[in-house]
Amino acid sequence: MSRQTLDPPDPDKLDLNTATLRPPWTLREIVEACARHHIRAIAPWRDRIREVGLREAAAMFRHEGLAVSSLCGGGMFPAADRRRRLAALDENRRAVDEAAGLEAACLVLPVGGLAPGSKDLPAAREQVRDGLGELLEHARGSGVALAIEPQHPMFCADQGCINTMAQALDLCDELDSRAGGALGVALDVYHLWWDPGLREGIERAGERRLLCFQLADWLVPTRELGTDRGMMGDGVIDLPCIRDWVHGAGYRGFHEVEILSAQDWWRRDPDEVLSTCRRRHQLAC
Amino acid sequence: MSRQTLDPPDPDKLDLNTATLRPPWTLREIVEACARHHIRAIAPWRDRIREVGLREAAAMFRHEGLAVSSLCGGGMFPAADRRRRLAALDENRRAVDEAAGLEAACLVLPVGGLAPGSKDLPAAREQVRDGLGELLEHARGSGVALAIEPQHPMFCADQGCINTMAQALDLCDELDSRAGGALGVALDVYHLWWDPGLREGIERAGERRLLCFQLADWLVPTRELGTDRGMMGDGVIDLPCIRDWVHGAGYRGFHEVEILSAQDWWRRDPDEVLSTCRRRHQLAC
Repeated sequence: MSRQTLDPPDPDKLDLNTATLRPPWTLREIVEACARHHIRAIAPWRDRIREVGLREAAAMFRHEGLAVSSLCGGGMFPAADRRRRLAALDENRRAVDEAAGLEAACLVLPVGGLAPGSKDLPAAREQVRDGLGELLEHARGSGVALAIEPQHPMFCADQGCINTMAQALDLCDELDSRAGGALGVALDVYHLWWDPGLREGIERAGERRLLCFQLADWLVPTRELGTDRGMMGDGVIDLPCIRDWVHGAGYRGFHEVEILSAQDWWRRDPDEVLSTCRRRHQLAC
Repeated sequence: MSRQTLDPPDPDKLDLNTATLRPPWTLREIVEACARHHIRAIAPWRDRIREVGLREAAAMFRHEGLAVSSLCGGGMFPAADRRRRLAALDENRRAVDEAAGLEAACLVLPVGGLAPGSKDLPAAREQVRDGLGELLEHARGSGVALAIEPQHPMFCADQGCINTMAQALDLCDELDSRAGGALGVALDVYHLWWDPGLREGIERAGERRLLCFQLADWLVPTRELGTDRGMMGDGVIDLPCIRDWVHGAGYRGFHEVEILSAQDWWRRDPDEVLSTCRRRHQLAC
């Protein structure tokens, strides 16, 4: 990829995933920070919505003119028994209702890993398929698009056992053959930059299936698995190249920054984080 | 997979990768420990061979009746410029010569990640293909089989940019269409247990391409990327299931235990480690 030939991205596409800023910063403070930095879209995690309640959160976003690009959470379908599977499905239906209440463009689902105590990965993947299939009916009725978020294979055991674009798209085709926009993929570059089928998967997904596009960077070395993501430009992911593929496939949505960084960015002032996101979005994406 | 229906593995297949025991234990002490525990095969890393020299290492293994299932090291093909690429290739030729001198069944190649300073993953993968292609001529002349070791995607940047069975087998088919045994795959369950194409890849590989089979377990949680592997049975990998697939595909080689474990097994006495390996090989694999 020749980065030189690519124009910088539209600055209005910059979008903040709330996981980039941690407590003690409140959702209200995050929303106010977005306004200060002219960020026009937000992607809240469900725990942030619970902080103030759905109605209040929706009102805050509306007041600041923030689009809700996605609601993050839900998924986690595999469970040890039928009772727990049904409970997980209920929880997912509540997540769909919240996404509808926020007018979120989609609900992002990490789908879940192995059921507790189980080593049966094929069974976990079947439970994910079945759970998604059942949730899809409720989501269609609520007008909420579901975005399967393939997880980096290092999270296969405990967060998500869908780990490549091809796997996610196979599920989409199986469960939603019409491809009417009810089911698609959340492409987080941190999870998928290594995927040898990434380019082909993005083309295959196209506009209809690409529901969410998330940015961070892969640091070398990465000190631990969960919360050592890098700011765009500080790692080894060829972000302009992937953005080019995504745009080439017809995606016109936001560019959601989701940096889980316990040792670095979570320790900084939100204004420093957001001004860096703004600058790096232009220079490194 | 129904573990109950599967017989325990042949105890004589147990094989020790030297990375399971760390300095201060010397290669000589490791070899003596193998003898005490009736382990009949060893898989040394190249740094261990340097400890005593090739001739002395080969003599030690012969004296204890240890087969050398693989020599680990080499690979690391991508480099920043032509001079460094040629130097890497020279280093790989030396690794082939060492494997020949040890009468190792194969040379295991982690292949390498991004060239230093580069974000160009497709270019790294091309360099791996080209490097393997050049090394293959030398390896054929020396009678040494090369085993591509797909690396877990969390090592894509810095250790190996071949990350799935399908990728490794595509390379094998491209570079060695005869499938005469000169080029194949080292299947480390730690790197590949999550791969949605694992079963299909094992069948596709078959006896001719399955050159090495390595055991460890994936712990939940995994505390850091490089050296937090689990003893077989302590994690979530369905080891009997994968062994069954591997045997079903015709593999009759050793079961190499490679547990990099800075906080746990590396701190224990070698006799405790090896007796646990012996027991878990029977109970959990």
